Amino acid sequence: MRLRDFGVVPGRLPPGPLNAITDVPGVRVGHVTRTEGEGPLVEGVGPLRTGVTAIVPHAGSLFRQKVAAGVFSLNGFGKAAGFEQIRERGSLETPIILTSTLNVGRVSDALVAWMLREHPEIGLTTGTVNPVVAECNDGFLNDLRGRHIHQEHVWAAIDGAAAGPVAEGCVGAGTGTACYQFKGGIGTASRLVLGGRFTVGALVQTNMGRRPELRVLGAPVGSHLLEQYMPEPGAGSIIMVLATDAPLSAVQLRRLATRGALGLARTGAISSDQSGDFVIAFSTTSRHPHMPGAVTSSAERFNDDSAALDDFFLAAVESVEEAILNALVAARTMTGRDGHTLHALPHAALAHWLRHYRLTE
Amino acid sequence: MRLRDFGVVPGRLPPGPLNAITDVPGVRVGHVTRTEGEGPLVEGVGPLRTGVTAIVPHAGSLFRQKVAAGVFSLNGFGKAAGFEQIRERGSLETPIILTSTLNVGRVSDALVAWMLREHPEIGLTTGTVNPVVAECNDGFLNDLRGRHIHQEHVWAAIDGAAAGPVAEGCVGAGTGTACYQFKGGIGTASRLVLGGRFTVGALVQTNMGRRPELRVLGAPVGSHLLEQYMPEPGAGSIIMVLATDAPLSAVQLRRLATRGALGLARTGAISSDQSGDFVIAFSTTSRHPHMPGAVTSSAERFNDDSAALDDFFLAAVESVEEAILNALVAARTMTGRDGHTLHALPHAALAHWLRHYRLTE
Amino acid sequence: MRLRDFGVVPGRLPPGPLNAITDVPGVRVGHVTRTEGEGPLVEGVGPLRTGVTAIVPHAGSLFRQKVAAGVFSLNGFGKAAGFEQIRERGSLETPIILTSTLNVGRVSDALVAWMLREHPEIGLTTGTVNPVVAECNDGFLNDLRGRHIHQEHVWAAIDGAAAGPVAEGCVGAGTGTACYQFKGGIGTASRLVLGGRFTVGALVQTNMGRRPELRVLGAPVGSHLLEQYMPEPGAGSIIMVLATDAPLSAVQLRRLATRGALGLARTGAISSDQSGDFVIAFSTTSRHPHMPGAVTSSAERFNDDSAALDDFFLAAVESVEEAILNALVAARTMTGRDGHTLHALPHAALAHWLRHYRLTE
Amino acid sequence: MRLRDFGVVPGRLPPGPLNAITDVPGVRVGHVTRTEGEGPLVEGVGPLRTGVTAIVPHAGSLFRQKVAAGVFSLNGFGKAAGFEQIRERGSLETPIILTSTLNVGRVSDALVAWMLREHPEIGLTTGTVNPVVAECNDGFLNDLRGRHIHQEHVWAAIDGAAAGPVAEGCVGAGTGTACYQFKGGIGTASRLVLGGRFTVGALVQTNMGRRPELRVLGAPVGSHLLEQYMPEPGAGSIIMVLATDAPLSAVQLRRLATRGALGLARTGAISSDQSGDFVIAFSTTSRHPHMPGAVTSSAERFNDDSAALDDFFLAAVESVEEAILNALVAARTMTGRDGHTLHALPHAALAHWLRHYRLTE
Repeated sequence: MRLRDFGVVPGRLPPGPLNAITDVPGVRVGHVTRTEGEGPLVEGVGPLRTGVTAIVPHAGSLFRQKVAAGVFSLNGFGKAAGFEQIRERGSLETPIILTSTLNVGRVSDALVAWMLREHPEIGLTTGTVNPVVAECNDGFLNDLRGRHIHQEHVWAAIDGAAAGPVAEGCVGAGTGTACYQFKGGIGTASRLVLGGRFTVGALVQTNMGRRPELRVLGAPVGSHLLEQYMPEPGAGSIIMVLATDAPLSAVQLRRLATRGALGLARTGAISSDQSGDFVIAFSTTSRHPHMPGAVTSSAERFNDDSAALDDFFLAAVESVEEAILNALVAARTMTGRDGHTLHALPHAALAHWLRHYRLTE
Repeated sequence: MRLRDFGVVPGRLPPGPLNAITDVPGVRVGHVTRTEGEGPLVEGVGPLRTGVTAIVPHAGSLFRQKVAAGVFSLNGFGKAAGFEQIRERGSLETPIILTSTLNVGRVSDALVAWMLREHPEIGLTTGTVNPVVAECNDGFLNDLRGRHIHQEHVWAAIDGAAAGPVAEGCVGAGTGTACYQFKGGIGTASRLVLGGRFTVGALVQTNMGRRPELRVLGAPVGSHLLEQYMPEPGAGSIIMVLATDAPLSAVQLRRLATRGALGLARTGAISSDQSGDFVIAFSTTSRHPHMPGAVTSSAERFNDDSAALDDFFLAAVESVEEAILNALVAARTMTGRDGHTLHALPHAALAHWLRHYRLTE
Repeated sequence: MRLRDFGVVPGRLPPGPLNAITDVPGVRVGHVTRTEGEGPLVEGVGPLRTGVTAIVPHAGSLFRQKVAAGVFSLNGFGKAAGFEQIRERGSLETPIILTSTLNVGRVSDALVAWMLREHPEIGLTTGTVNPVVAECNDGFLNDLRGRHIHQEHVWAAIDGAAAGPVAEGCVGAGTGTACYQFKGGIGTASRLVLGGRFTVGALVQTNMGRRPELRVLGAPVGSHLLEQYMPEPGAGSIIMVLATDAPLSAVQLRRLATRGALGLARTGAISSDQSGDFVIAFSTTSRHPHMPGAVTSSAERFNDDSAALDDFFLAAVESVEEAILNALVAARTMTGRDGHTLHALPHAALAHWLRHYRLTE
Repeated sequence: MRLRDFGVVPGRLPPGPLNAITDVPGVRVGHVTRTEGEGPLVEGVGPLRTGVTAIVPHAGSLFRQKVAAGVFSLNGFGKAAGFEQIRERGSLETPIILTSTLNVGRVSDALVAWMLREHPEIGLTTGTVNPVVAECNDGFLNDLRGRHIHQEHVWAAIDGAAAGPVAEGCVGAGTGTACYQFKGGIGTASRLVLGGRFTVGALVQTNMGRRPELRVLGAPVGSHLLEQYMPEPGAGSIIMVLATDAPLSAVQLRRLATRGALGLARTGAISSDQSGDFVIAFSTTSRHPHMPGAVTSSAERFNDDSAALDDFFLAAVESVEEAILNALVAARTMTGRDGHTLHALPHAALAHWLRHYRLTE
């Protein structure tokens, strides 16, 4: 189930064929989901409601063909790894891995190990590698302290990454996470820009938002659903990943990333004090080869001042907004450790309020 | 006419008595409006549809009692002055002046002159002063190139700044500016936080937004008003000023400023490529005295991790959203140079669509 | 008189033919110097020991052919204008103007006026323009509060900008400024990189440094000259401008700008609390056309990871170090308002200590 | 052996009793060094020339009593973890761990595990924790890809951290690292400021610098030592940690951190393209309690504009400069994997050139 199945057409720009980040040619997504055990928390044992999601920008070697990238930190109370180098150089040289908060260290290590596996030259005959990992806190349902994501899971997520439709909701890094105090998780969407010449895609890992703030395409749906089961953790984080096949520069991608915050805001979130709300944007076609032979080269670039960038900004805002709502709609009620439950947004109620607010007929 | 006159109650937090930035004790606002001439543009002569707005953080000497401050640049394609020092030191030592784009230089000079008038010691027996000025482009209606704001206007705006209700719409720096391709201008709003213990106030100078994106409290009002007169300039800037009487630190104020972007996004804007979208936040009670005698001192601070900051963030989001909509509602249709016209948002249509989307009865 | 006239060969890279920023093809520099009057300060009258310096990146229209640029704020207690847009877009569209602190507003206005004179379309049929101005405080010698730089001086500096040797010391924006509590001013230097394939040039406006910290090519010269006349103002600012003809991107230029701080540090400065220490770097060959017809285009770029960038970084460090020392060596003792005097670094003493420390024979 | 043993008195400010970061009351340092095996590299086996260093800001719970902190990225081509949250909140809640590049992930995980061990509430009844880890690349001597730092080593470094003298040179995270293509490693130094009222201490992990650039207290020592064994890896990274017991704010600490770059530059480094050159500064007395009961509290603060901050900036510059030179002087020649050798700076040669350049008699 996705947002559009409710009969709404969010935004002004058309989505790509899959309405997913994988509409950007070459981008692949892989999930590994760990839902094991029930009942009381036993640290290091479970229950597990966690996972890992890999976004792979292209099918070649990312280390040898780095992609231009930019990041934006809306609220930096998060444990993301690898952003310093993206800011400095404007490029990305590994898959992006999303996971659970306390796993960032071991997932970074596993990602490094994967890169070392693929590249015997790293750290030996050439430089090292910068793993990029971001996270949300799934500890309301999951044995967070147990840090249950290991090398095998990270490798499986990367190696299993595929083009095509992307599973949403309680999968991968979104297995145990929330969204406006409902169950949330992974969501994705895309937009065609400049009449279909290029694509912008978004994938989000949601965990943010307080119920009363939830707006669905503007409708104040959350304010009507305060009586629903309301869990304690009222304000977590969100990770937003944006991809495009247009040859945007690092500067332009940083600016695109900033717009992720505006897509988030359309759903009501205020980016709470204790959230790690980050956006990473990359271009699959702006490449930075590792150790090129020549000092200069000729490359296609996306012109400033061509009046075309606004289409990308709108696409970023719309695709993030819809990706968040897709995560919300796709997620199913889940009970985890100590009987804690995150309820799915009731579809009937959503349909009702969309109709009430005249967003559907 | 203000947004609430349509029968809506925007947001979750209560406004202050005036629902204005002047609800923050000590904050004063002054406008000088220049609407002169009609017909064809004669550069340097007119017509004039421009002005200047001064926000004065407290009644004492700002130079001797600087206030803690932070800035956020959502999109830096603007000509704002004085931000480097706010970023470095986290303090503000002059009134904030808003004006028309090409006036920033001469308005900065006039603000310096005003500070020199008040402080014979500046630049002589003590350091210099950092004028803070921001702008939007009113050139669709105004003889922009004529730069018609002079020292007398800046001084009058500061000297005339007052507590109490704040004029909105086509006044001061908002005289000639737009809002979602309607006439916009100055708007303000406020929120009480922590049960009324503190206040957050916002004042905006709008010029941003494309019509189709306009959302009023979530309702896609803009999409229904595309047949209205649609001027060329589709995407300009916005300046957002936030004030509070809570003793927020420079770091906390920078974080508060960031939330201005989320309030803007609630009204639909995507922060276009060629916009200068800036937020300045200050605290009237976090003071940094000029050349204090002692190396250390004891001061009241706002604790991190007290779970109270989220109320301020929500207040910033809500007050910016409402301030923008107040600017939109208050502004009147205006015809300027070469017969260019920016139409007011038709109140009847707004009332209709608010009803249609069930935001009013 | 320049540093090399003392028989030293600073740094490892060779200078360009002029050892000046004008070794970068197309870069021009213009100074207007105002030294008028003597004796007691009469505000608004004099004495004047001030000026303005213009750095013009290329001979064409900067507005139509913007150049890629980056900035670095080492210590932002300064009043520089125009940096927000350089950060956002990574481009520069006006000459860079250096002047005296309290003049920034009126010099910005004059620079806007010059751009409007050259471009009747600005603010009328196309967007506005972002003037870039930076400053040091010459108030120890000059009637700072009088703000004696007017439009005619700014225009003369730009219109008179020329290729060829650059006047150093007490000229232009350096007329009244200091350097390690000696008289300083304008200095310049250059380096050839990649075996002469490209050039990096620096121009500085010095006003920073406390005497005891002064190191000349490493030699602790300042520590021996404490008995010399020591004026009160012990720690001001420095503006550093870097130019190159290599096609560096905005990201690479920001990184190059950062190295200006390291060149400064080699001369001993600690970047004091109340300084505005900024670096602006631009490329004359990375162009961003205003409103290009096409969305994308092919452009020469400077590859990352080619191991060539370090040569540019070294060139930036060395040329800034030498430019500062050139300013120090070129400046002559000057007496200004109220009989205040900034003494020139005694050349004989410098020669002595260079010999003493075995930097010359 | 330390720099001062050569008879020089670097800088203007006096050092603390230990001339070490541990002169800041409460600060403790722990090293774990792994030097095992010889001969050809066998990945995952050795040889090992690596380690880990822990800097612990105070003896209490850092999680419950966070310390104000700031970071500066001079060149972000590094894999440091935990900086996003320091930037956002301006506080530090774990020990700072330094290690080898590819270990950052597993060391972060081990640091998280240590925090979980100490704090059963983390991730269960309160929020998560932000591990701060930085690195240099010791792969010229060490089996870098083997990632030989495990939980036991990290825990031992933290648990063994002690006040008192700090081991320098080839210890802990400096075991296998370089310095201007000599052997380097860990170095430390301190300065008393404001007449002994406060202390600033520095600890560095060196790996940066090309030989020809090396300046020892200004003397161009490196240029004379080009004939010495010159290893391939010419330009690595440096991590600089600054501590003070003055109650500096997060903003002031960020500014202090920036000065680390200037101390580095005094030794000649240009911060090469592929370096991760970071500075972290914290105050032991500016505390941010975790989940304080009250919204506001009274706290001692360090006043801006008191003219006292410059003393701290000078102290940061001098203590970083001396700490780097201490690392260089303390390190011994080391042979590692595949017979690679990093030679110690020959002390006799250093003494010679210090005498030659009249820095000693």
